[in-house]
Amino acid sequence: MQLAVAEATDLAVRVLTRYGMSEYCAKMVAEHLVDAALCGHEFSSLARLPILAALLRNRPPAGEIRVVRETENSALIDGGDNIAYAVSVVAIDKAIELCRKSGIAIVSANNTWFSGRLAYYVERAARQGFIGMNTVHGTARTAPFGGMEALLGTNPFAIAFPSEDEPVIIDMSTSATTHGAANLAKAKGETLPEGLAVDSNGRPTVDPDAALKGAFLTWGGHRGYGISLALQLLGMLAGSEPVVKDDSHFGLFFLVIDPGLMMPGGQYQARVSELKKIIASTRPAAGVKKVRVPGERSLRHRRRALAAGAAAVINVDDKVYSRIRELLV
Amino acid sequence: MQLAVAEATDLAVRVLTRYGMSEYCAKMVAEHLVDAALCGHEFSSLARLPILAALLRNRPPAGEIRVVRETENSALIDGGDNIAYAVSVVAIDKAIELCRKSGIAIVSANNTWFSGRLAYYVERAARQGFIGMNTVHGTARTAPFGGMEALLGTNPFAIAFPSEDEPVIIDMSTSATTHGAANLAKAKGETLPEGLAVDSNGRPTVDPDAALKGAFLTWGGHRGYGISLALQLLGMLAGSEPVVKDDSHFGLFFLVIDPGLMMPGGQYQARVSELKKIIASTRPAAGVKKVRVPGERSLRHRRRALAAGAAAVINVDDKVYSRIRELLV
Repeated sequence: MQLAVAEATDLAVRVLTRYGMSEYCAKMVAEHLVDAALCGHEFSSLARLPILAALLRNRPPAGEIRVVRETENSALIDGGDNIAYAVSVVAIDKAIELCRKSGIAIVSANNTWFSGRLAYYVERAARQGFIGMNTVHGTARTAPFGGMEALLGTNPFAIAFPSEDEPVIIDMSTSATTHGAANLAKAKGETLPEGLAVDSNGRPTVDPDAALKGAFLTWGGHRGYGISLALQLLGMLAGSEPVVKDDSHFGLFFLVIDPGLMMPGGQYQARVSELKKIIASTRPAAGVKKVRVPGERSLRHRRRALAAGAAAVINVDDKVYSRIRELLV
Repeated sequence: MQLAVAEATDLAVRVLTRYGMSEYCAKMVAEHLVDAALCGHEFSSLARLPILAALLRNRPPAGEIRVVRETENSALIDGGDNIAYAVSVVAIDKAIELCRKSGIAIVSANNTWFSGRLAYYVERAARQGFIGMNTVHGTARTAPFGGMEALLGTNPFAIAFPSEDEPVIIDMSTSATTHGAANLAKAKGETLPEGLAVDSNGRPTVDPDAALKGAFLTWGGHRGYGISLALQLLGMLAGSEPVVKDDSHFGLFFLVIDPGLMMPGGQYQARVSELKKIIASTRPAAGVKKVRVPGERSLRHRRRALAAGAAAVINVDDKVYSRIRELLV
């Protein structure tokens, strides 16, 4: 089925506040979830609401999101046990504000949980002409290369670069699979592809339940392990534990850079546009239609969806919609 | 054969100055090359001298390494067409100096060529208690995911984190193979492993010569492509072209962060040490002896080699040594 943007946003706010989230945070989360669908990522959209409701149900009321330490180019944020969807917006906006004054800024945030599409946060920086980066150190579900114990988060990262028009946005996780994908496979009674996880005895497994009890592997072998570890160590600047054992206490890291420090007057943005054009027109290999610029597909999807103006809608799976309605009963 | 550290350093300086490098730069390169052998990376050590001599032979004399733009937390360096081995030391030391005052600093460098082990530069930052990162945008040899034209460099990156003792150092390239490895295979008459490169018609190839005329693939499929592109876009802050077509005009990027901005008094370093210990003692998977902390093997190799004090030696392959002696005839 389809929902109008305003209707979908309102529905998400109602569910989230019903399960104890503040109106302030619920609005930020709802906008993020609806935007995910506009960008063509249905899985990261309203389908998250039942999971978020379940997580909220067992949580004491969250506190405030507060800046607890600040310099002219850095800030440390206490997320007050609020969801990272909201804390990340506050954090990237703080980093953008500091970058505007200092040219570079970092912001770390702790005492928060469950991040969304990282592309959403870093795009905010790129839209203002800055390079924005975000890394997340979350619940340990991934084994280091050669290991079998979950010591690393699924540790996603995203980075966005401003161009003369649409930004380049790179957004990925560094584990071979994700908690969401394993849970989905489990719910559907499906197996995981081979080579993504080990069971609690360190044996390769395709059983999603065994994988959830064991550990995911890092994506990309020893190089992917190195990247995952680097992201974890950046996340730890927030004061998070070396290994996050619960569903809270993530460590978020944000870096914002004004390219004008090196190339003033929009020269950098022009250079990024030039590279985008070169990639978009490069010869594809046999069997490939077109070489993609990271982020362009999501941005195009959103542009098309929003072209309808006030009549813009998002797709919601009928079953997902029923489950969401049940959350409000 | 074995060479004393001082002897090997002196030999490298003599070769490099003989082919036109300044004494100032040659000393920095020599120390780097000898250190690579101390760390157990013979391939990145004196074996580089014949390649560097060949590159120097065709080059006009280099200029000065100059800071051309500077703020309290950033600097842009004109490498004066000097080798990146030297420019990178100047650049990371500048970033460390600025970070000491501002807590964060970025330095970009252009007009330079041929970088070495990036671990060498970022370790300098970590030894002073800072997080250090370096990315390189170099000669286009790698196709974007789905493409067949070389638009991306082999784009290595390294990041080092300070702990209470030895730093964690992550250092990798983002192409499926490297120019050095392809040239070595060609010289030995060997083929490349499958899946690393395409020929100039975009067909998969294991022939190193065809690969050098075609393009390497990015490591790690579309995720690896995203990372490679991000590193290229960071390198471009130096003002380098979107696609580097010659053996010069690389774009180097350095970021140095004082973790004390977020966790003062060595708390961060303690947390990094804690994670290192957890990884070092985690259960390995079947068939694996021990889970490694990135960088530890190189650092241990160097510690052991230097334990001999004034008698410390490095290994040099006999054939490599003969070729180096011939460079001085």
